[in-house]
Amino acid sequence: MRRSSLATLPCPVARTMDVMGDWWTPLVLQEAFYGCRRFDEFQSTLGLARQTLSDRLRRLVEEGLLEKEQYQTEPVRHEYVLTQKGRDFFPVLMAIARWGDEYLGTESGPPIRYRHRCGHDTHAEIVCAHCAEPLTSSDTVMAMGPGYPAKLAQVPQIVARFQRPQGGDRPRSGSSQHHD
Amino acid sequence: MRRSSLATLPCPVARTMDVMGDWWTPLVLQEAFYGCRRFDEFQSTLGLARQTLSDRLRRLVEEGLLEKEQYQTEPVRHEYVLTQKGRDFFPVLMAIARWGDEYLGTESGPPIRYRHRCGHDTHAEIVCAHCAEPLTSSDTVMAMGPGYPAKLAQVPQIVARFQRPQGGDRPRSGSSQHHD
Repeated sequence: MRRSSLATLPCPVARTMDVMGDWWTPLVLQEAFYGCRRFDEFQSTLGLARQTLSDRLRRLVEEGLLEKEQYQTEPVRHEYVLTQKGRDFFPVLMAIARWGDEYLGTESGPPIRYRHRCGHDTHAEIVCAHCAEPLTSSDTVMAMGPGYPAKLAQVPQIVARFQRPQGGDRPRSGSSQHHD
Repeated sequence: MRRSSLATLPCPVARTMDVMGDWWTPLVLQEAFYGCRRFDEFQSTLGLARQTLSDRLRRLVEEGLLEKEQYQTEPVRHEYVLTQKGRDFFPVLMAIARWGDEYLGTESGPPIRYRHRCGHDTHAEIVCAHCAEPLTSSDTVMAMGPGYPAKLAQVPQIVARFQRPQGGDRPRSGSSQHHD
């Protein structure tokens, strides 16, 4: 019930979360970027229950992020291969990793190094597709797009949603805290 | 049990997911970027059960993404304000939205427009912090970083994890599919 309600929300974040299903799903997907292909590879690295892994892999196949390819006929065995839709999720994982490394790191430094083909250990910067400047909450305003359902657009609390000052910068009493 | 195991994994993605707890949490956080401050604002927009909302807000406060500020004394009332840690999650939501709009959109177009201060409707590009080129799965290699636990680094399946060809480009039999 929760899942279907997320899928129908006019919000690309909610829709994506509906596809992911639970937190294991992006972690399973992440292992595909680490080069996992076969069930037992995923299983030995992630250490999660076989049924859970099986469910998450099936979901990723159903949603078109992985595809099953037969690599053996007797007995029939498949491996899981990233599709373009799946590969294009990698930058999302990099954006998540960036925040995690910044705020949830340990004293010993980041657990994973991300080496870009430019030759540097790096992290993700999330920038505007037009001007290449950072896409921060104080620089970005969200509004109804062409795909916003007309019916919803007239509901008072939805109208209110798009009329509030955005970005977490709404002035408040008794505080001078600010960010740039 | 799942939560604590995720938190201790040497992976910034898993740690971030542990903080989020479930998919409602980033959606609650997203409403803060839409300008929600008060419990009833969150509740009327998201339409989720009060107890669920209360739990997610508490978690976001505990994890330091939101802070409670008193805005009224009789009776005492608080609003939820984004911290820097919380505001810095915005680019992650933008990265998720980008993928969602690309792959889960409808014919009528994106439900939400993201207007950057440069004056353009935009979407997120996720680029290398060094060279500003896209950070794609085929251009990025993951390796153990300085914070990778020494004990784990010797476990055979972990060693194997970092030795596989990465990026979803491992050659496979019977297929010439490729991506750049």
